[in-house]
Amino acid sequence: MNNFIFSNPTKIAFGEGQIQELKNLLPKNARVLLTYGGGSIIKNGVYDQVVSALQGRTWFEFGGIQPNPHYETLMQATELAKEREVDFLLAVGGGSVVDGTKLIAAAMHFEGDPWDILAKNAPVHRATPLGCVLTLPATGTESNGNAVITKEATKEKLGFGSPLVYPQFAILDPTTTYSLPPRQIANGVVDAFVHIMEQYMTYPVNAKVQDRIAEGLLLTLIEEGPKALENPRDYGVRANVMWAATLALNGLIGVGVPQDWATHMIGHELTAMHGLDHAQTLAIVLPAVMQHKRAQKREKLIQYGKRVWNLQGSDDAIIDGAIAATKQFFESMGNPTTLSSYGVPRESIPKLVNMLVKHNYVALGEHGDITPEDSRKILELAA
Amino acid sequence: MNNFIFSNPTKIAFGEGQIQELKNLLPKNARVLLTYGGGSIIKNGVYDQVVSALQGRTWFEFGGIQPNPHYETLMQATELAKEREVDFLLAVGGGSVVDGTKLIAAAMHFEGDPWDILAKNAPVHRATPLGCVLTLPATGTESNGNAVITKEATKEKLGFGSPLVYPQFAILDPTTTYSLPPRQIANGVVDAFVHIMEQYMTYPVNAKVQDRIAEGLLLTLIEEGPKALENPRDYGVRANVMWAATLALNGLIGVGVPQDWATHMIGHELTAMHGLDHAQTLAIVLPAVMQHKRAQKREKLIQYGKRVWNLQGSDDAIIDGAIAATKQFFESMGNPTTLSSYGVPRESIPKLVNMLVKHNYVALGEHGDITPEDSRKILELAA
Repeated sequence: MNNFIFSNPTKIAFGEGQIQELKNLLPKNARVLLTYGGGSIIKNGVYDQVVSALQGRTWFEFGGIQPNPHYETLMQATELAKEREVDFLLAVGGGSVVDGTKLIAAAMHFEGDPWDILAKNAPVHRATPLGCVLTLPATGTESNGNAVITKEATKEKLGFGSPLVYPQFAILDPTTTYSLPPRQIANGVVDAFVHIMEQYMTYPVNAKVQDRIAEGLLLTLIEEGPKALENPRDYGVRANVMWAATLALNGLIGVGVPQDWATHMIGHELTAMHGLDHAQTLAIVLPAVMQHKRAQKREKLIQYGKRVWNLQGSDDAIIDGAIAATKQFFESMGNPTTLSSYGVPRESIPKLVNMLVKHNYVALGEHGDITPEDSRKILELAA
Repeated sequence: MNNFIFSNPTKIAFGEGQIQELKNLLPKNARVLLTYGGGSIIKNGVYDQVVSALQGRTWFEFGGIQPNPHYETLMQATELAKEREVDFLLAVGGGSVVDGTKLIAAAMHFEGDPWDILAKNAPVHRATPLGCVLTLPATGTESNGNAVITKEATKEKLGFGSPLVYPQFAILDPTTTYSLPPRQIANGVVDAFVHIMEQYMTYPVNAKVQDRIAEGLLLTLIEEGPKALENPRDYGVRANVMWAATLALNGLIGVGVPQDWATHMIGHELTAMHGLDHAQTLAIVLPAVMQHKRAQKREKLIQYGKRVWNLQGSDDAIIDGAIAATKQFFESMGNPTTLSSYGVPRESIPKLVNMLVKHNYVALGEHGDITPEDSRKILELAA
């Protein structure tokens, strides 16, 4: 196990009815900006629950944050937050709303062009505190310090991270996910699954605890994901998916182990260039990364095949089976695993590789050895 | 899954050499009281590492905190801490030192007799902040808000908990455990194992994530525990045991699920009356609780037998096998599982039950239905 430092300050309030905890979780006398997305929280009643819990407080609102939240929109929200002298941000929605709100939190205090936080890794020295009510289990952003933002003008999708933008609290009420369209639930399950794999499917460092927890989360998503599509109002299923998705990326399974993240980096270019859903890109790229890197990832692929998919046979048969089972799982969740299924032509591959080079994603993976040529081969495997 | 609120503020610094992180983790300008036990940290070099990291700071020390830390000793330490106007406590040692230091932290600010914190559940309104360097993986106290204290004069062993006594940081360097006597490593593994079982071996509430994590931690201890005895200087083994013991009782596997803790309550009386090591009492009592409550715990016993011990057959055969395997594991770690093995006579059983009644432990277990008569039967089963 590698050395690590771990802390996670986010307080989790989990379960049906926990939105009322907002009254206790929000700082006294805070001037709150409520941020949200396209309005689904108004339709499903979450907005009303939040507004009810905000009674007696000074608060403002900013709606319209997009999936793959647009930098341009977030700068409007930042202006509003500064104008209203907001000192607490309350994100209500899915990962995009929370991610976007993290950028607002940092941009409010940033001197210069806030895009530099993403494009130049400019350090965040101060951020407005934030909390969230999560309505879509997927990204884990509700309990970490990371965010991914898209600049609409240039079609660039970039991330940043800072301990200052961890949500102070995250309210996770599984009933808020009942009204999600199947596509979003499917995407959420695939997203969480791949987050786990990015931290698990590398090489062994004798981190038995992290491995077992990762495998337990994968098994939970495999068991519960299809049920979440079949029975949208099964509380237990939604609860298990939601808690698994949070623990998939709250830092716990990633401490003391190597991490990959090549799938995410390559996938981001696919979303930016072709508008694919984030999880769709992951379903395409991950199996191809597993295949392309099967020699380097051999030991963990075998462990994964045995423990998660209960496979037996020769090592190579187990690896083949593990990759096939992973693809099959994504397909069963309604996420095809080839570029062509989404109408992305082979001719896009060189352009996608060029964008990786432009963003300096030229040494990806846990060994930093996935060159642009490797990324090209990975995309060819996924064609 | 039941509703829950979870947060864990302790920052973990894990790995060889992390004691040097003290420089960054201790608050600037703090007046530090270093607390420790019987002096093993002086022999194994940990004391010197800590003192080196404290260079340039104002600090004092208090040694001699016992296993099952004595209230009387801790009151002396509290006096010293107040006299020296200490504003940060640094516990260096095993669970007893950390537990004891939590009481010092609370007692420093308590008006009235601090024993009331334990005997009357008097609320803790303020506590001096603390951190720790853990040298014995076992209790999980390094990352929770609980402590157990023994009053030597009356042989009472009682606990308290407060969010104010979570360590701000915990330094876990597996190499500090190399010099532990085998008995302490064995006790630590058994203690952590039973902590997991207290939160896991109840009845199912469809908490798949918590169950899988608990099972992963149990499997880790089963795999690594015996190796920790065989190869005391195997870094990887010690690291896995240490991290598993912390996660066993940092709150994570206990959220949203019923908890038992009857084994601990009954075991505390055994330690108080007969001086048995804490883990020895757990090794005696847990299998008897599993047997006595096998009807109520049936579903989880079967799940445990299948997933943790890989047992097959009829349900009752799996349950029998699971209880036998648990006993066998404790025995293999050098902890016998009967009262008689430790020379505790049957005649002690009524006295132990009387002490449970005196401490009002008359409705134990996840259903609150373990009466003194049940405790008697459990102890008879373990005779």
